[in-house]
Amino acid sequence: MRKDPARLSFEIRARDGDARAGLLHTAHGPIPTPTFIPLATKASVRSLSSIEVAGIGYELVLGNTFHLHLSPGEDRIAAHGGMHGFMGWEGAIITDSGGFQVFSLAHGGVADEIKGRRGPQQGRVKVEISERGVGFQSLLDGSDRFLGPEESMEIQAKLGSDIALVFDECTPSHADRDYTARSMERTHRWLDRCLDWHAEHGPSDQAIFGIIQGGVHEDLRREAAERVGAAAVDGISIGGALGKDKEEMNGVVAVTAPLLPPDAPVHLLGIGEIDDLMHGIGVGIDVFDCSVPTRLARHGVAFAPAPEGRFRIDLAKARYADDDTPISEGCPCEACRRHSRAYLHYLARGDELTGARLLTLHNLTYMERLMAGAREAISAGEYASYASAVLGGAAPWSASPSAGASQAR
Amino acid sequence: MRKDPARLSFEIRARDGDARAGLLHTAHGPIPTPTFIPLATKASVRSLSSIEVAGIGYELVLGNTFHLHLSPGEDRIAAHGGMHGFMGWEGAIITDSGGFQVFSLAHGGVADEIKGRRGPQQGRVKVEISERGVGFQSLLDGSDRFLGPEESMEIQAKLGSDIALVFDECTPSHADRDYTARSMERTHRWLDRCLDWHAEHGPSDQAIFGIIQGGVHEDLRREAAERVGAAAVDGISIGGALGKDKEEMNGVVAVTAPLLPPDAPVHLLGIGEIDDLMHGIGVGIDVFDCSVPTRLARHGVAFAPAPEGRFRIDLAKARYADDDTPISEGCPCEACRRHSRAYLHYLARGDELTGARLLTLHNLTYMERLMAGAREAISAGEYASYASAVLGGAAPWSASPSAGASQAR
Repeated sequence: MRKDPARLSFEIRARDGDARAGLLHTAHGPIPTPTFIPLATKASVRSLSSIEVAGIGYELVLGNTFHLHLSPGEDRIAAHGGMHGFMGWEGAIITDSGGFQVFSLAHGGVADEIKGRRGPQQGRVKVEISERGVGFQSLLDGSDRFLGPEESMEIQAKLGSDIALVFDECTPSHADRDYTARSMERTHRWLDRCLDWHAEHGPSDQAIFGIIQGGVHEDLRREAAERVGAAAVDGISIGGALGKDKEEMNGVVAVTAPLLPPDAPVHLLGIGEIDDLMHGIGVGIDVFDCSVPTRLARHGVAFAPAPEGRFRIDLAKARYADDDTPISEGCPCEACRRHSRAYLHYLARGDELTGARLLTLHNLTYMERLMAGAREAISAGEYASYASAVLGGAAPWSASPSAGASQAR
Repeated sequence: MRKDPARLSFEIRARDGDARAGLLHTAHGPIPTPTFIPLATKASVRSLSSIEVAGIGYELVLGNTFHLHLSPGEDRIAAHGGMHGFMGWEGAIITDSGGFQVFSLAHGGVADEIKGRRGPQQGRVKVEISERGVGFQSLLDGSDRFLGPEESMEIQAKLGSDIALVFDECTPSHADRDYTARSMERTHRWLDRCLDWHAEHGPSDQAIFGIIQGGVHEDLRREAAERVGAAAVDGISIGGALGKDKEEMNGVVAVTAPLLPPDAPVHLLGIGEIDDLMHGIGVGIDVFDCSVPTRLARHGVAFAPAPEGRFRIDLAKARYADDDTPISEGCPCEACRRHSRAYLHYLARGDELTGARLLTLHNLTYMERLMAGAREAISAGEYASYASAVLGGAAPWSASPSAGASQAR
């Protein structure tokens, strides 16, 4: 770990068991943690404008190095003031390294595997992996491209993110222990190359998060935690295949988190189900990102206090066609304040843009409230009861410590 | 014409040549005219929520009887408080009769023809036209449906719109004079049946607009104007094929408008190009609706003070890839206040939802400003110079009479 407040500092303000609430100070302002990061994969949170994302309460979004490199290209973005200027976003930005995407081309749908869903699919694109990095064909125009540690850091420098992630291989869950170990070791060599490039060429106010791999193997996770924790990174992301089911994933996260430097901000990559967030916060995760809230919204699925349905309701289902209630009573979002499930059902069935937009607003509002409630609960020393109320089916706004107080007003 | 303030009243507050500015008092509040009506064809203005549409300044939207009948069905909408309750819209609503859509099934793309674009296409759906009405197959499930004057009025009654349009045949431009004349006469018989049904069963606060057909034939337009003007309608819409080009269309509109009762609100159906609006207002049109602003937005096209490009710029074009200026300097919309053409170009090229949404906001803001400027200019007796400034390439906000005053502040 390195401490350079010009790049990043992490201030833990409250602890409650292993959970902590704090402030992540970035070049574009402080982010209260625990926090959820909406994806702005291609420089937009789909269906929302930058002003609206900020309006929900978000101060940090995640851009995608791989996609932005292919289009519009990092040079064009740099010419328009980096991602901040290009997308008109005044908050902070974290960029992933592109490693996840290029290895997805090689290994098939890694996203499925991280979540423990089934088996490998063969990628349909030519990919060549070497010590130097990964050669691949652009999905947009078939051109030959190459992404390695230096290339990824250079792109992220041009994107101008507040936090860059190091270039890593996200090992698929179908890889055996031997492949996973060798891949992890290469990821560690790439970590050094990322840091070397950045020390010489990187923006002085851009922070770097190292990435922990090691699959489901406890000894590998331990080795990665030690290695990355000792490097000159500003924070740590836990990545890779986290197991075949939620239990194994929670086990890997619970084993890995305590191995990390106690004052490092810890980011769990690509995880965003309600119960996973509640568990992750409990074992000390500070930052989450995931496509789930925004992607589900575009398919008519809304977050709701419904544990039996994995905290979501599929509004396209016929049972909601005449349901005059809002998605979730008390939710401050526009969809819940103004519209019925019946209307949202109709919009979802018709694949209407307004429906995708209203559900995106709702899901991101829900996540923001969930995190705000967690921060408040941790500060009040009541995280366990908050998590248990949420997991038991309470809405974030009625489970948070201030809910009673505000009802009493 | 009939005058029943419980349904509708039209108050002309200023005249400037043939142009007039007024207030259309509906059951859901007054609408300042001239006004443009955004389409909420399927109970949503695509990509915007009801709250946002109102936020731009709109107080009237147009719903589609044909589409809403097929899905979700007028009974379901009635059960949720009519269109107002169903879509959470607090302003006024006008519904078209569905005639345009069912005859489009029969005649091919009538929309193209109204605008004078080329020839008939054969519809691909079985349609049977008779004196009673039109039988057709649902595009959604293949079921047999029937829409005639009584059915249309009953659906619109259930939709609960403030203004219903009578059921008519929108005669295609490739129809000859004889067909157009016979069709118009049937439309007039249907007008009587619509009014009869509504007198007996219609909501007491729902107004009815009659529709003028007659194609490009001046004597038929005159006959229709007399016939519809003498009927117990609350306002008049000018519909149908308006000619093969803009000149012929403007001629038909200019000939028809003076034939109408001088105190009737006049609505020009389906026309929304900037120059057409400027001309229409000048000859006395009060209300316009059109899919152009919202449909173009979803295809990356923005309204702008650019007469050489028909007042629009196609942001998907390569020339905008590095253009750091807003779509239109001074436009108060979110897209222009926060974003560059370069960003909007990138979003348009990627077919991103955020792009469709930002351009929809922009185009509807542009139209709202254009109409507000026209209202102000008419009140100030300066409509001719306003229209000429806009047609010459001035933005609505710098062409309106108050622009100098506000610049002087």
